[in-house]
Amino acid sequence: MDWLNNTIKAPDDFYYKKALTRQACLTKPPGSLGLLEEIAMRLAAMQKTETPSIERIWVSVFAADHGIAAESVSAFPQIVTTEMVKNFVRGGAAVNVLSRFVDAQFEVIDVGLLQAVDLASLVADRAANGTANFAKQAAMTDAELNIALTAGKSAVKRALEHNSQLFIGGEMGIANTCSASAIAIALTGLPIDQLTGAGTGLDDKAIQHKSQVIKNALTLHQHSLDSALKTLQYLGGFEIAALVGAYISAAQQGLAILIDGFISSVAALVAVHLNPQTRDWFFYAHQSQEKGHRLVLQQLQARPLLQLDMRLGEASGAVTAVPLLQMACKLHNEMATFEQASITTH
Amino acid sequence: MDWLNNTIKAPDDFYYKKALTRQACLTKPPGSLGLLEEIAMRLAAMQKTETPSIERIWVSVFAADHGIAAESVSAFPQIVTTEMVKNFVRGGAAVNVLSRFVDAQFEVIDVGLLQAVDLASLVADRAANGTANFAKQAAMTDAELNIALTAGKSAVKRALEHNSQLFIGGEMGIANTCSASAIAIALTGLPIDQLTGAGTGLDDKAIQHKSQVIKNALTLHQHSLDSALKTLQYLGGFEIAALVGAYISAAQQGLAILIDGFISSVAALVAVHLNPQTRDWFFYAHQSQEKGHRLVLQQLQARPLLQLDMRLGEASGAVTAVPLLQMACKLHNEMATFEQASITTH
Repeated sequence: MDWLNNTIKAPDDFYYKKALTRQACLTKPPGSLGLLEEIAMRLAAMQKTETPSIERIWVSVFAADHGIAAESVSAFPQIVTTEMVKNFVRGGAAVNVLSRFVDAQFEVIDVGLLQAVDLASLVADRAANGTANFAKQAAMTDAELNIALTAGKSAVKRALEHNSQLFIGGEMGIANTCSASAIAIALTGLPIDQLTGAGTGLDDKAIQHKSQVIKNALTLHQHSLDSALKTLQYLGGFEIAALVGAYISAAQQGLAILIDGFISSVAALVAVHLNPQTRDWFFYAHQSQEKGHRLVLQQLQARPLLQLDMRLGEASGAVTAVPLLQMACKLHNEMATFEQASITTH
Repeated sequence: MDWLNNTIKAPDDFYYKKALTRQACLTKPPGSLGLLEEIAMRLAAMQKTETPSIERIWVSVFAADHGIAAESVSAFPQIVTTEMVKNFVRGGAAVNVLSRFVDAQFEVIDVGLLQAVDLASLVADRAANGTANFAKQAAMTDAELNIALTAGKSAVKRALEHNSQLFIGGEMGIANTCSASAIAIALTGLPIDQLTGAGTGLDDKAIQHKSQVIKNALTLHQHSLDSALKTLQYLGGFEIAALVGAYISAAQQGLAILIDGFISSVAALVAVHLNPQTRDWFFYAHQSQEKGHRLVLQQLQARPLLQLDMRLGEASGAVTAVPLLQMACKLHNEMATFEQASITTH
């Protein structure tokens, strides 16, 4: 897993400054396009171009099962992970509809469902038949962690083979907010109740139970969580590890990344702990309604683009934000300058 | 101007409830698409259909000059109104780029530039050669107000002739935040300094001067501002009046309306004062960086879709939010149901 530490180059400041100069000449009061200006300038620097664009978008949804589901921490039964994978493959899920809308290339990766399923277009990069129950033991072995991280790296390789300009990762895995909350608490030291939420729809009592499960697990593993990688291994899910691998690999290869919701943001936080320059390649799509997301975004010093009370995961929030990135590029490239339009500026 | 009081029907609750039922069957935890669910349900009710869509979008940008510009309340010279109208007609402004991106039908209406300009595709519905300076007298006469309101109604007529499913109004007029702030203060009774901001880019001292100009004007006209219509007449701009007329007319004819930034929201507030049911047809695109916008949105009980620190006007924020409405419809119409996808829900 040494590749995780490989150098990540910063986006090219030369093109950032060129883009900044152009923004100042466009026919609008300076700064009046708000965050859309910054998006265009950052994409110019990432793509090393004066005319950035987001035309080829790649969406990888990683799916895996969680041993922690045995502790009754989700509103849905575990079988729903596999049922939703079938829904993704058939094109019926929210992320499918959204991906078609923005014309994104979409794929689903089985990183460790309870049982392998035979579906033609499903990518199989299976670490195991679900993680172990982290209430009782480490969620994954070294070897399994390695497979899951590499699954993310492989997805980025496919994205680049298609000349993608934006990588979006998503996740599906019943009980995975429990895993994500545990990781976030271990990494940030923030109180358990501030980072433990309703997931797919727990009531207050069930959230209290989920908090208790996390508290016990953190006590059980307290002497093992001495690095971000160990934290991922002991508390993580295969799909979360795959996201971590994908984010670091995409950043290493200079590919812009759009982060989805709570679970993806926790994966982003792990990635930044492992290789801090990863963050230079992140855009943050939205702040979800899941309780801990705001705090995780704060830890990442993120300013999310959307606040629509979404809380679905599966990359749905990220794909919803894609048109904003596209419009930022179009405005940057296509607006007239004050000079072209003969507009008086003083 | 009696037509302003004509009945506005509420969106059809039968279709709202049908849409609500469908949302509960889609393959996602209930409520997990956040505001996108509410958008789809409201559009279903507005369009009286089970499958709402936003394919045909109409953008009318109303432009006019302001007598109040003589009081040095803008960072740009008055000639920029006309120069920007030319930029709109040539397709070089932000709203042009965005309208092309969402494939919206775009038009510019001269409701009262200082001088008429001869441009083939410019719609001329001129109330006068700019408003009078409301620091000294009423901004417009009865007859001028009537022409400007009717210009908005005419734009909606054109939108409906093109079978538009969404009406977006925008504005251009140097010094028009001064007019909009004055109207908002008169209608809400909120403190002047809370509703007076930087517009296209005033510094603090210039904002103080702008506040003083507004304060003096409100004192001058205090005995005349006894209705929303009088407030619009004494303090308004022709493009603001046109927006008011457009919003009321669109609501009367059952056409969904997407509100842009500060000035458009003040026009929306006037419209709601004149005919309260207008609000049932509003979506609010964004909260702009202009100081008073948050408070005006509060008065409208609005929840804006975007907070991107935009502050450009000309309908740019509204068009930026269009893909969200489109995605809300696509999700509603195209997602699989739990039954179709054979997903276990308990």
